[in-house]
Amino acid sequence: MHTFQEISKIFEEKFGKRHFPLEPKNLYDGAQYLLTLGGKRIRPLLCVMGNELVNDLNPDVWQVAAAIELFHNFTLVHDDIMDHAPLRRGVPTVHKKFGESTALLSGDVMLVAAYESLRSIDREYLPRVLKLFNTAAMQVCEGQQLDMDFESMPRVTMDQYVEMITLKTSVLLATSLQLGAVLGGAGIANQEHLYEFGKNLGIAFQVQDDYLDAFGDPEKFGKQVGGDILANKKTFLQIHVMESEAGARLEALNRAADVKGTEKVQAVLALYRECQVDQWAKALKDRYMATSMQHLDDIAVLSSRKKPLEELAHFLLDRQS
Amino acid sequence: MHTFQEISKIFEEKFGKRHFPLEPKNLYDGAQYLLTLGGKRIRPLLCVMGNELVNDLNPDVWQVAAAIELFHNFTLVHDDIMDHAPLRRGVPTVHKKFGESTALLSGDVMLVAAYESLRSIDREYLPRVLKLFNTAAMQVCEGQQLDMDFESMPRVTMDQYVEMITLKTSVLLATSLQLGAVLGGAGIANQEHLYEFGKNLGIAFQVQDDYLDAFGDPEKFGKQVGGDILANKKTFLQIHVMESEAGARLEALNRAADVKGTEKVQAVLALYRECQVDQWAKALKDRYMATSMQHLDDIAVLSSRKKPLEELAHFLLDRQS
Repeated sequence: MHTFQEISKIFEEKFGKRHFPLEPKNLYDGAQYLLTLGGKRIRPLLCVMGNELVNDLNPDVWQVAAAIELFHNFTLVHDDIMDHAPLRRGVPTVHKKFGESTALLSGDVMLVAAYESLRSIDREYLPRVLKLFNTAAMQVCEGQQLDMDFESMPRVTMDQYVEMITLKTSVLLATSLQLGAVLGGAGIANQEHLYEFGKNLGIAFQVQDDYLDAFGDPEKFGKQVGGDILANKKTFLQIHVMESEAGARLEALNRAADVKGTEKVQAVLALYRECQVDQWAKALKDRYMATSMQHLDDIAVLSSRKKPLEELAHFLLDRQS
Repeated sequence: MHTFQEISKIFEEKFGKRHFPLEPKNLYDGAQYLLTLGGKRIRPLLCVMGNELVNDLNPDVWQVAAAIELFHNFTLVHDDIMDHAPLRRGVPTVHKKFGESTALLSGDVMLVAAYESLRSIDREYLPRVLKLFNTAAMQVCEGQQLDMDFESMPRVTMDQYVEMITLKTSVLLATSLQLGAVLGGAGIANQEHLYEFGKNLGIAFQVQDDYLDAFGDPEKFGKQVGGDILANKKTFLQIHVMESEAGARLEALNRAADVKGTEKVQAVLALYRECQVDQWAKALKDRYMATSMQHLDDIAVLSSRKKPLEELAHFLLDRQS
């Protein structure tokens, strides 16, 4: 078995090449651009770890891991166009650098390249892998659509928000793990537990993300605290307060939406503290984390094989920034 | 064997259903919208005919034909965003009706749905089908990029234009035929001749399209004659005149680019007639058509099996509108 540092290193060696021809230059430089900027490569890592949880590495796992990373980057390129985002990984987004039309098309070829990476795996697994991959791909698009729909909705319920987060981010983490397990020859029950492990881990991670945006230590957080509050974004915290409070506090929260700048962040944070939403969020994250760990526990393999995934989960969920 | 009317009818029965879930409504209504509006369904027809050229129908051919039509419609949705096109098939484009972000995402799910349609075919053929499909998909994107790049280039050579047209439209026609032949169990030589038949037919069709835009009978053409001239578009005619003329005529053509409206169309058409570019274009179309037919001839199957494709080619290339 490999440590996750070892897996990351092997993946980087294989993936860190040019994935596209040289011409047409605009199109393929646009597609290559984001890939070259790196990123944490969490999803391909999960895929390889999902394989090693149940078996020795299947040589095809690197193709599937690459497809997942290509797909993830495709979603970033298109999401950034939709969100009019100027920056990604600290530099201009693809559409800022290459123009919207080329970015759109560059995203498209990244998606095709993802399928081309899957194409060469053993045909014994290919239909099953495609099925899971396509399902996740559709769901990620659904999640992005819901996220956009939510912007213009005055109220979003907690169930709706959890569904959106699950679709937009968790299912790809879950599917990455499951695809690895499929290549390792895992049975259906083990695949499903592993999927649920990833899905709940993803939700826990989003709870943490929303928490840190409000309560993170500015020194460690590395970006502006209160960004979600400033942008009036729906978050676990915002929705919880809207759903659980009434009267004066709810009115104060609604009023704060119209305030601008630091004053608004201060007002909302004060309210959040009054409602003890920080403690609620910590407890919620722990619940998702516990569910996640229970599913890992329920996978029928030697517990020593689960160690790397346990460590990765704690590494991801113990961060302060 | 089936006539092309029969094939069209069967395809329409299978394809004319909702391809997507009901929710999220914006996303999937956007994706379904263009499919419901119809279109000529030439590409899936070619796929099925490619199969029947060499063998009885493989039941999987309908899945592959559907994938091709989904892919083609995906490209229309994204191209219309890039081209800021207001109308498609006589009604508002997807982005005009649903907004650009939803249209972008709707296109994405159409592409994923294309792969999902391929996924369930016999795994014996799946890798080969994916390989051909992915290659064509990449090339279509390359063609669209070149088309956009050409807009800002003062001069485009005939070779560059033919390459762009080949990538943007011909390779998908060619690949549709080839994929059908693969499912019919054709040998490589027959596959290649069929591909070249489709590729040259596609170029001949584009020559005709460019010709009709300038010289079509307004009664039969059904849209404004001279649209390409008004938009200063690169066409077979425009590039030929730019490459073959010099002196006064070339100057006159360059001057005409700055004129507006009907006057410009009249001026350019007069020049085109002086240069006899109409006859040149007819001869060029005939040459591509002849090459196309030669490849059909070279396919090693009974000539009676080629009849439907011959008829379709003449049907497509004898139109006046």
